[in-house]
Amino acid sequence: MPILLAPADAPALAELLEATDTSGLTWHLEDLTGGAAASTPDAAGASARSASLADLRVAGIGTLGAAGPTEIAFLSNPRYQSQLDSTHAGAVILSPAMADAHKASLAASGRTDGPRALVVCTEPYLLYARVGQWFARRSRANDIAGIHPSAVISPDAVIGDGVTIGPLAVIEAGVTIGQGARIGAGCIIGKDCAIGEHSLLHPRVTLYDRIRIGARALIHSGAVIGADGFGFAPDSHTVKGAYSKIEHFGGVMIGDDVEIGANTTIDRGVLDDTVIGNGVKLDDQIMVAHNVRIGDHTAIAACTGIAGSTTIGQRVAIGGAAMIGGHIDIGDDVFLTASTVVFSNLAAGGRYTGIMPAVEHSEWERNAVAMRHLGRLQRRLKALEKLSAKAADT
Amino acid sequence: MPILLAPADAPALAELLEATDTSGLTWHLEDLTGGAAASTPDAAGASARSASLADLRVAGIGTLGAAGPTEIAFLSNPRYQSQLDSTHAGAVILSPAMADAHKASLAASGRTDGPRALVVCTEPYLLYARVGQWFARRSRANDIAGIHPSAVISPDAVIGDGVTIGPLAVIEAGVTIGQGARIGAGCIIGKDCAIGEHSLLHPRVTLYDRIRIGARALIHSGAVIGADGFGFAPDSHTVKGAYSKIEHFGGVMIGDDVEIGANTTIDRGVLDDTVIGNGVKLDDQIMVAHNVRIGDHTAIAACTGIAGSTTIGQRVAIGGAAMIGGHIDIGDDVFLTASTVVFSNLAAGGRYTGIMPAVEHSEWERNAVAMRHLGRLQRRLKALEKLSAKAADT
Amino acid sequence: MPILLAPADAPALAELLEATDTSGLTWHLEDLTGGAAASTPDAAGASARSASLADLRVAGIGTLGAAGPTEIAFLSNPRYQSQLDSTHAGAVILSPAMADAHKASLAASGRTDGPRALVVCTEPYLLYARVGQWFARRSRANDIAGIHPSAVISPDAVIGDGVTIGPLAVIEAGVTIGQGARIGAGCIIGKDCAIGEHSLLHPRVTLYDRIRIGARALIHSGAVIGADGFGFAPDSHTVKGAYSKIEHFGGVMIGDDVEIGANTTIDRGVLDDTVIGNGVKLDDQIMVAHNVRIGDHTAIAACTGIAGSTTIGQRVAIGGAAMIGGHIDIGDDVFLTASTVVFSNLAAGGRYTGIMPAVEHSEWERNAVAMRHLGRLQRRLKALEKLSAKAADT
Repeated sequence: MPILLAPADAPALAELLEATDTSGLTWHLEDLTGGAAASTPDAAGASARSASLADLRVAGIGTLGAAGPTEIAFLSNPRYQSQLDSTHAGAVILSPAMADAHKASLAASGRTDGPRALVVCTEPYLLYARVGQWFARRSRANDIAGIHPSAVISPDAVIGDGVTIGPLAVIEAGVTIGQGARIGAGCIIGKDCAIGEHSLLHPRVTLYDRIRIGARALIHSGAVIGADGFGFAPDSHTVKGAYSKIEHFGGVMIGDDVEIGANTTIDRGVLDDTVIGNGVKLDDQIMVAHNVRIGDHTAIAACTGIAGSTTIGQRVAIGGAAMIGGHIDIGDDVFLTASTVVFSNLAAGGRYTGIMPAVEHSEWERNAVAMRHLGRLQRRLKALEKLSAKAADT
Repeated sequence: MPILLAPADAPALAELLEATDTSGLTWHLEDLTGGAAASTPDAAGASARSASLADLRVAGIGTLGAAGPTEIAFLSNPRYQSQLDSTHAGAVILSPAMADAHKASLAASGRTDGPRALVVCTEPYLLYARVGQWFARRSRANDIAGIHPSAVISPDAVIGDGVTIGPLAVIEAGVTIGQGARIGAGCIIGKDCAIGEHSLLHPRVTLYDRIRIGARALIHSGAVIGADGFGFAPDSHTVKGAYSKIEHFGGVMIGDDVEIGANTTIDRGVLDDTVIGNGVKLDDQIMVAHNVRIGDHTAIAACTGIAGSTTIGQRVAIGGAAMIGGHIDIGDDVFLTASTVVFSNLAAGGRYTGIMPAVEHSEWERNAVAMRHLGRLQRRLKALEKLSAKAADT
Repeated sequence: MPILLAPADAPALAELLEATDTSGLTWHLEDLTGGAAASTPDAAGASARSASLADLRVAGIGTLGAAGPTEIAFLSNPRYQSQLDSTHAGAVILSPAMADAHKASLAASGRTDGPRALVVCTEPYLLYARVGQWFARRSRANDIAGIHPSAVISPDAVIGDGVTIGPLAVIEAGVTIGQGARIGAGCIIGKDCAIGEHSLLHPRVTLYDRIRIGARALIHSGAVIGADGFGFAPDSHTVKGAYSKIEHFGGVMIGDDVEIGANTTIDRGVLDDTVIGNGVKLDDQIMVAHNVRIGDHTAIAACTGIAGSTTIGQRVAIGGAAMIGGHIDIGDDVFLTASTVVFSNLAAGGRYTGIMPAVEHSEWERNAVAMRHLGRLQRRLKALEKLSAKAADT
């Protein structure tokens, strides 16, 4: 279950919203119990506080269904509009249309249940994300920075101010760690790696030598960055079918604001680097092969594999378990459906799919034979069409 | 090769069967060398021993093909019935029908080779499993419980009686470990986790903070439980296409008797927990996303991915490399074929499949074009049918 | 970016080629600046040096596009022939035909740019691999062998000469490590394992008990070898649908010259061993289930899963993300296309494919309905064919 702040630490709703990064967002606060409402803070900021809601303290975030009176919830999917009436959340973040609908519903029914306050925002999901980030920062505020005595740290590593290094981590020679970065327990940071400021490596991340990671990275446990790619030259001189290893001299270059999921692997380049752009988000158990280049702000869901030397553009969205062959170009802003296999270039901006839908097994059995003879089926149809055309002629 | 007990430690066959948990099973022992046979022990138990087989000591389990005279084998697939004649196993667990067939075969041929003893049981595979569990427990009996001095354990962790903690494990603050649990070398147990009694974590399991695991869990190396799910709110206010992180405040709640395979990942919930029911069995390299709920006694084979907020019922069986989309409901007792992709709800009790069968490449090439024009093929067929119907009318 | 040797350490080109293992290869060196050329060294070897190129020192390997005058590049794909003119590489490894084409191009244009030297070889990719191996060995030459004091090593482990064991590795009782082997930081080597001479385990490899690995293995981080396979006997005696564990007593036997990728898992056998032959190459995130047998010199690309008791022949090549069912035989020299699903035996020497090609989503939508009714489509076609035949008869 979600953690809650102690009552003494819980901010009032308006304080929470002021403390939240709301840059770019327009929002206002409505007091459904009849008080004055705050809105997007003016330059001074102070006037935004709603005296009437001063006692509405927010200790955490919850779902509409589970949140209590000291929690804030959000509504971004119209499907769940009806849950507003029954939620026990103290406040709910939602869109202007949803807020209006709720107020109309309250007026029509004469009921007064539901949340005490509405936080109305044209981008409720984004505001919810930002509020969540405040809580996450707050819950880490009591963590003590420092280097655990059991960590094994090379004397020539350069460790920035305020860095945290967990128990039994290993930091090899030549490593640079930027200020405020946190290296989890059991992480292994190979020689000559560089980790940017305020990056967070969860426990047991492994970096091979010479990996460069930008600022504010978030890397999850079990990720392995910099293993050799899969490259071999056939070499049957001694034994038929044997292989000779292609050594990997390249590195991995990871931009700023990248998130990398649990047990994901990113291989180093053969001679050049494997490159992950700024703001790229990789889910768990993704495989990125040698010399792949992923453009800025591309997001890839779990279990996807990308073969060697493929280039993926910016702002591409790839569903889970997609499989992309080697030496392929995927343009900017492509949307690739989950479980789709790609063996040729994809033009920018397109949406691509290749799924065999699941059906009842008996139905599949009836189809499977036809599937194996599709080419023949097509030829038989063409023959019939010719016959038919001939018949029409006569 | 399988390990064998030292001769002095090897129990007599009847002793082995008495020591085995045979609850629920009916079995009897037949001495093919002509002595009296034991059967399911009576209340006293002692009468079950077969004096004639007292010297048949069982040091381990083997296959019919490889077991020697001090090993027990099993036969559950009728395909391998003929191996009974040639096995060197001292004893074989098998069904009554298979036992009868073997005895008839011996009588007909006049031969006396094959095993000395048959252990006849209506569920031979289950009895074999139970006998194996006895050997596994026996082989661990000499392990010394205790906490390795190199482990880094928070002074406020609560460690039960008889707990084993391996070298270089990390146990963070607030952790509770139930009695008899074993934590392997290099495991990292995050803050406020709870691990149930007699659970076994193999080396290098990683638990993030606030993960709850029931009793008798078996978790394999490289498993990562509690990483953040993959959630982002689009946030183009500063940079086009950028994302803002959805923080994950939920936990992971794992029931009793769960097995989790090597390098499997289970992400924590966003606000609520990700939930794994009692008796669930997960193979290696499975990905369970945030807020997934898996019902009791569901078994999932390797490389399967389950996207966020999907609910899987009880006693579901999922083949390897299946891929299940997000926000989907899979009913109880569903059987999902390996490598099948699921993007819609599946009704309880059904069997579902969606596989493109592998064929010779040249055949596939002939089919591949047709595959890309299936819709057109269907429309062309419909047109022909209309023509044909019209022709029939005239 | 690739690492370069310090100028003082960089060998002259001819020295580099003499130091390289060129066994089985025929090569010669051409000096495009007009000097005498070396060729495959004679027995004495010394005569092979080209005085004219004595000052061409090679500090590293680069791509044609990125290499500088102290680097060697290679050309094996005719597509990139034109890059020869513009490369700044000091020397280029290439085939006789490509060398001739380049010299003809220089003669025709009268230009003298491009590399100073050509290394002409009938197998340029293999020679490049071998040169790379020399650089890799050279860059490791300064590594200091030795056992890090933070490693936890059982006093009865047998550690060969010149073995390196990294920080915080764990070596359990009964382990044997062959001479010159290197065990990375954080590796965990279970009881009674044996690791062959000159094997390299990168950081954080996990071996369960009783795993045997041959000589010259290369195992990447996060690999887990020897976890239990996925085996359960249905056991509804107490709870409907529950399972009883099949214990795994077998081991894993890995041959010589095997490479295993990052986060790959190889499960131990139930009673017999899981067997990986000599020279097998496994990429990242591969899942090899219990009792699988993989023949010598088979190469398998990333994200492939192989279910239990399947046998794969020698020199098989399997593309990424293939999924192979259990109890299947795949013959020698099979080529299996990436992302192909296999549920039946594959005859030796064949090439097999089963991919649903990715298409534009709108096209896929038009096809998807037809896909679900393929069997019906086939039957409708057959009915039309009958009608048509009947019409032709009348």
